[in-house]
Amino acid sequence: MAEVPKALRWEGSAVSGRLVLLDQRRLPLEELELICLSVGDVFEAIRTLAVRGAPLIGVAAAYGAVLGTEPPRVPLEARPQEVVRGLMEAAAWLETARPTAVNLHWALARMRARAESLVTECDSGEAVRTRLLAEAHAIREEDARMCAAIGRHGAALLPERARVLTHCNAGALATAGIGTALGVIYTAHAQGRIERVYADETRPLLQGARLTSWELMRAGVPVTLIADSMAASVLASGRVDVVITGADRIAGSGDVANKIGTYMLAVLARRHGVPFYVAAPSSTFDLSIARGEEIPIEERGPEELRTFAGVPSAPPGVEVFNPAFDVTPAELISAIITERGVIEPVEARTITAMVGGGEGA
Amino acid sequence: MAEVPKALRWEGSAVSGRLVLLDQRRLPLEELELICLSVGDVFEAIRTLAVRGAPLIGVAAAYGAVLGTEPPRVPLEARPQEVVRGLMEAAAWLETARPTAVNLHWALARMRARAESLVTECDSGEAVRTRLLAEAHAIREEDARMCAAIGRHGAALLPERARVLTHCNAGALATAGIGTALGVIYTAHAQGRIERVYADETRPLLQGARLTSWELMRAGVPVTLIADSMAASVLASGRVDVVITGADRIAGSGDVANKIGTYMLAVLARRHGVPFYVAAPSSTFDLSIARGEEIPIEERGPEELRTFAGVPSAPPGVEVFNPAFDVTPAELISAIITERGVIEPVEARTITAMVGGGEGA
Repeated sequence: MAEVPKALRWEGSAVSGRLVLLDQRRLPLEELELICLSVGDVFEAIRTLAVRGAPLIGVAAAYGAVLGTEPPRVPLEARPQEVVRGLMEAAAWLETARPTAVNLHWALARMRARAESLVTECDSGEAVRTRLLAEAHAIREEDARMCAAIGRHGAALLPERARVLTHCNAGALATAGIGTALGVIYTAHAQGRIERVYADETRPLLQGARLTSWELMRAGVPVTLIADSMAASVLASGRVDVVITGADRIAGSGDVANKIGTYMLAVLARRHGVPFYVAAPSSTFDLSIARGEEIPIEERGPEELRTFAGVPSAPPGVEVFNPAFDVTPAELISAIITERGVIEPVEARTITAMVGGGEGA
Repeated sequence: MAEVPKALRWEGSAVSGRLVLLDQRRLPLEELELICLSVGDVFEAIRTLAVRGAPLIGVAAAYGAVLGTEPPRVPLEARPQEVVRGLMEAAAWLETARPTAVNLHWALARMRARAESLVTECDSGEAVRTRLLAEAHAIREEDARMCAAIGRHGAALLPERARVLTHCNAGALATAGIGTALGVIYTAHAQGRIERVYADETRPLLQGARLTSWELMRAGVPVTLIADSMAASVLASGRVDVVITGADRIAGSGDVANKIGTYMLAVLARRHGVPFYVAAPSSTFDLSIARGEEIPIEERGPEELRTFAGVPSAPPGVEVFNPAFDVTPAELISAIITERGVIEPVEARTITAMVGGGEGA
């Protein structure tokens, strides 16, 4: 496997730990580590997109909740119930950092459930803390295993010498492993089956230009950067065999909320007879939501479109509409690649069969 | 009519003139004039996009060719044939400044034809120069009249309280008048019939963010800026009644080459049942080209995508594909709005009937 970067790591103990993040706001120009010592640091890192990508946000939030149980927020000698209360408060705070990615809620719900069981299981606050940290580690490790499994299932769908178009960043920088959409690409690349990846730059925050092209170059995968609006003519010219993106939330119908611009690609892929795949762990499914229209879509501030890196690129004060995500209807999605297998065709029945009964749902 | 900006003017005489351009590279942050004293200045202004927009490039090139006949390039006392030779040489040079916009070739062909007729018509170099400048003025004035006519024809197609999506800049900054696509909007706005315009920012060079939103704001037209990748969900949400763009070259079949991203909009408009109109003067038709595939598409340098507003935004050296235009097939175009009238349906027969016989073709 190529040299894929790591987006986060934990250092230290359950009472004095720190979450070390690769600061994704500074990439690709600087590789700086952002050290989070408190739940507030993690909240800010998620809110400001220093850490992003739906699965990675979940992992970061789990560690952030652990930081919420540490001194001085919760005293060193606290009883189990106080430690658990610290976790609950931290989780409630972290939950509000980003509204669309369901993995954030999923990971925090799992940490909460674990905490509740620990009130009776443990006779010391220290034991609670140790097991909460172990739970966060488990979430991280499972995420890495999920990426590997998604990679295996997805790579099997690609043709030889595949030319793949992707959007935003669903890679090592969006997960605790090799990524979801890029996990498929890395796995196929290790099998000698990737000819080229086209990466949409992904306005407004340029995750494709800054992150995807950076991590693919670093991993030795041939990558060509295009503007989002060029995907249509790249598809029309026959340069692409398959489109793969990640997902931020998937409704029970199979409608997918993902980075703004994903829906455009799905429409264009359909027009040009190119398969459109979504790669996402089963934790991305939100079966409490029947259809895509019900998924809340985060709108971000106008400055993301009025400026770039502090440089004005539009008239000051121009009105802006800046939704961070769009919804792609299930009918445009050829298959959803999960760690459990490939969902195809994409409809309520096949989704329930694959993810309906398990922990992911 | 609202206060629409002027993109160029001529100052001085036919032997000592200058072309004054609004430097579009500096907008919207600075309104600077770029003074062109020679054909080389105009060539550079076109090549570097200080002046852009297919019709405006034609007008600027006509004046640039006139500058090519002035001293010191052609001596003050030159005979008619020497003045004409100066024009021919200048035209040959200017022709190479941008490959896709047909108006450039059209305007220069017209200046050449005029020059040829003047060799026998005039008995002094001065008379030739005066008439060549008059021809450039005529091209400019006809362009302004064409914009007004396109505006009238197009406004009649819009519903009341129209919500319009546009791409790139086909406005006052792209023509010598009120624009083509924006000419329709300005005319309908003067009739009280525009509710809102959505402007795609238009990566990589941000003509929508920098130019369209600037000129619409200045003219008092309500405008909302979006990223190109957001057009799909703006259309899906029912916020748009009609899409209007300009064109750089139109083949005999009605296939339209226009700013990269136009094809994407046409596909999405079709999916959502929204009319997709192209507004362009008849000089944009190139009936020597049967179909869109034959239109040469300019590819621009990689730095436009590796940087954003001058700030690096991608890994240095990342491979880039940067076509400046795409081709929208006639079947996706509801109508083409010309100064002569509306072409609908868009097909070889209706195109020949509207523009086949006249000077525009």
